[in-house]
Amino acid sequence: MVSKLLKNRLSARIKSTKRSSIREMFRLTENSDIISFAGGLPDPNLFPAKIIEKATVSVLSTDSKRILQYGASEGYVPLKQELIKRLIQKEKIQLTEEELIITTGSQQGLDIIAKIFLNYEDIVIVEEPSYLGGLMAFKSYGAKFIGIPCDENGMRVEIINNKLKNLAKHEINRIKFVYIVPDFQNPGGTTLSLERRKKLIELAEKYDFLIVEDTPYKELRYSGKDIPSLFSLAPQGRVITLCSFSKLLCPGFRLGYTFSSKDIVFQLATGKQSIDLCTPPFIQAILAKILENNELEKHIQNLISVYGKKEKIMLNSLNKHMLPLKIPTIEWTKVEGGLFLWIKLPEYIDTEKMIMKAIEKKVAYVPGTDFYHDGSVKNCMRLNFSSSTFEQIDRGIKRLAEVIKSEKR
Amino acid sequence: MVSKLLKNRLSARIKSTKRSSIREMFRLTENSDIISFAGGLPDPNLFPAKIIEKATVSVLSTDSKRILQYGASEGYVPLKQELIKRLIQKEKIQLTEEELIITTGSQQGLDIIAKIFLNYEDIVIVEEPSYLGGLMAFKSYGAKFIGIPCDENGMRVEIINNKLKNLAKHEINRIKFVYIVPDFQNPGGTTLSLERRKKLIELAEKYDFLIVEDTPYKELRYSGKDIPSLFSLAPQGRVITLCSFSKLLCPGFRLGYTFSSKDIVFQLATGKQSIDLCTPPFIQAILAKILENNELEKHIQNLISVYGKKEKIMLNSLNKHMLPLKIPTIEWTKVEGGLFLWIKLPEYIDTEKMIMKAIEKKVAYVPGTDFYHDGSVKNCMRLNFSSSTFEQIDRGIKRLAEVIKSEKR
Repeated sequence: MVSKLLKNRLSARIKSTKRSSIREMFRLTENSDIISFAGGLPDPNLFPAKIIEKATVSVLSTDSKRILQYGASEGYVPLKQELIKRLIQKEKIQLTEEELIITTGSQQGLDIIAKIFLNYEDIVIVEEPSYLGGLMAFKSYGAKFIGIPCDENGMRVEIINNKLKNLAKHEINRIKFVYIVPDFQNPGGTTLSLERRKKLIELAEKYDFLIVEDTPYKELRYSGKDIPSLFSLAPQGRVITLCSFSKLLCPGFRLGYTFSSKDIVFQLATGKQSIDLCTPPFIQAILAKILENNELEKHIQNLISVYGKKEKIMLNSLNKHMLPLKIPTIEWTKVEGGLFLWIKLPEYIDTEKMIMKAIEKKVAYVPGTDFYHDGSVKNCMRLNFSSSTFEQIDRGIKRLAEVIKSEKR
Repeated sequence: MVSKLLKNRLSARIKSTKRSSIREMFRLTENSDIISFAGGLPDPNLFPAKIIEKATVSVLSTDSKRILQYGASEGYVPLKQELIKRLIQKEKIQLTEEELIITTGSQQGLDIIAKIFLNYEDIVIVEEPSYLGGLMAFKSYGAKFIGIPCDENGMRVEIINNKLKNLAKHEINRIKFVYIVPDFQNPGGTTLSLERRKKLIELAEKYDFLIVEDTPYKELRYSGKDIPSLFSLAPQGRVITLCSFSKLLCPGFRLGYTFSSKDIVFQLATGKQSIDLCTPPFIQAILAKILENNELEKHIQNLISVYGKKEKIMLNSLNKHMLPLKIPTIEWTKVEGGLFLWIKLPEYIDTEKMIMKAIEKKVAYVPGTDFYHDGSVKNCMRLNFSSSTFEQIDRGIKRLAEVIKSEKR
């Protein structure tokens, strides 16, 4: 793709950047009769277009001079105020305006965090598997990784100690943060237990690294009980929390927010200035109005009800179509929320090699390899259950079981 | 501001980042009776709120499932198609969809260009003075600069040859691109002559660097004749052109676009994936609808008429209030378009020191120093004429003349 002439000009970081397989898959499966479990897409049938229209007309008629102008890099103040109110109610988290910044999607939060913390070859501790967008953002600033395996309770944090205790001081100093999706992880679907949250904070204090917790799915719990965020459990300044409205309202707004100590948020705002000046005030104002009208909470309750049902259907379909294959080593996450579950297949299956066969059979998933910082694991896949219909989920899992069945041992 | 603990953790790039004086000034002069020539703000009274409302209601009612979802990193196809049509009509530039990418403001275009081209200590050739947002983006990736002075015809491109001819081959290889705002430059207000455009392309071919041309003001010409873009004059793949709708529609949308060869645009899209996944499809669809309805061109004609009048008033006010000061070395740009003009004051005036006095007198400008990559020039200032009313412009220039008069030689 790249001409020789161009190759000599590109930066080292972009030459080592692999394009997101998810975003490529997105192009491949768009507008076709493929049942795609590949994206991380919310169900477009649930987008609250009417609520958005009402809020847009309202803010344009009362406040157009302000919301169509440039805004502060830190974010639109009325939105920040609504978010702060909401965090007290929902998470018992008390913040000042200076401790929170609006970002252009939480992906931008990851990019800015990487930008302000990572020198070339600094170290980030990540889950195995980890969120692809996080890995890509950190890699693009030259990060190295220490990977920590996960089980059904999320990252096995006790392993951090084993990995770090023999490192030299100068190596420990290069560890800038642990990056973790503690609730309904992408891609694993797992949730970090309370004990592990406490242990992780203890280790962060001991080795003096920060914790970056990414929580786009936290509010989408379909069963079980909410676990307090790392932010709420840790001393001030230890945790940076990323949140997103992509799953709670719509991805098309690209609205997220990040909170931490005032010091850290100040640096994030400095980093953001050269990235996009500010997140669109127009969209920030629409969301602020929706929150002010108290129209989001009912919508989220609806999402929980529909996605919870989809999750059950996918788990039932897996039981129905996968168990008869009589492959003893096949496993999947017993998820309680979020949008994803993770399937571990026998070692003889390479899901990256299998994907084209699956697409021929009109079903798509994301091969697990890309979620590993070192690409070491080949026999896993991520399935999304939010974007397909009830009926598609069962039919797609049936097709997938046939594809898996036809793989040679 | 930064605690010692945090300072040890921050990346080298953010430690060397100075916050934008313009964005700080923006905070200082917001909501006050100061007449501010400091921002680069379009006139909020001209924002076409009704046109935006109509387009929003239309796209939400017909296409909400698509425009509220994630979109391609390359941009929303109907918008790209409208832009391509427009470029043929306005600039006689013929592009394919693969040669153009939508960005979250043109500032994001600068960030991505820096990300994909610049290794630490690679060189960018810039104007003296240059656009602050460009300098910040490049600095944040560790760029070094070669500065080229400007006169009333823009960058004195012949000087590039003098500066480069004695450099070693390995130094020449580190020059990735020249960054230039050829039309109604920010901050200088000057326009690069046709001869210099041709000469710059010749030098880019000779020394094999790229040209990054940033053209947010090109369509805002109030007198004189349009000069063809560098893109249209150069061989394919030599120029990357940045465009923005911040000045033509509204900044609150954060919509820009960048075009170049297919190869380069592919790399830009790869870089963008980890930055924000995609620019809000919701906003892209609104702009596409406005263009489709052919409602932008009339609006731009209105901007040209009002801003052209403001420009004349500012030039007249400068004659009226500055000439009686009888300071022979005071000079300002005879601008023909854009939003800014540049004042050069006598050497004994340090505009950074003078700014607090000006704010006391209820008038604000941006000190020129920050527009120099090395901060070397102290006696200049940038004035914006688009955001103040006719009456404010005259009153503000009168106040400014009083401040300048009171400076000691």
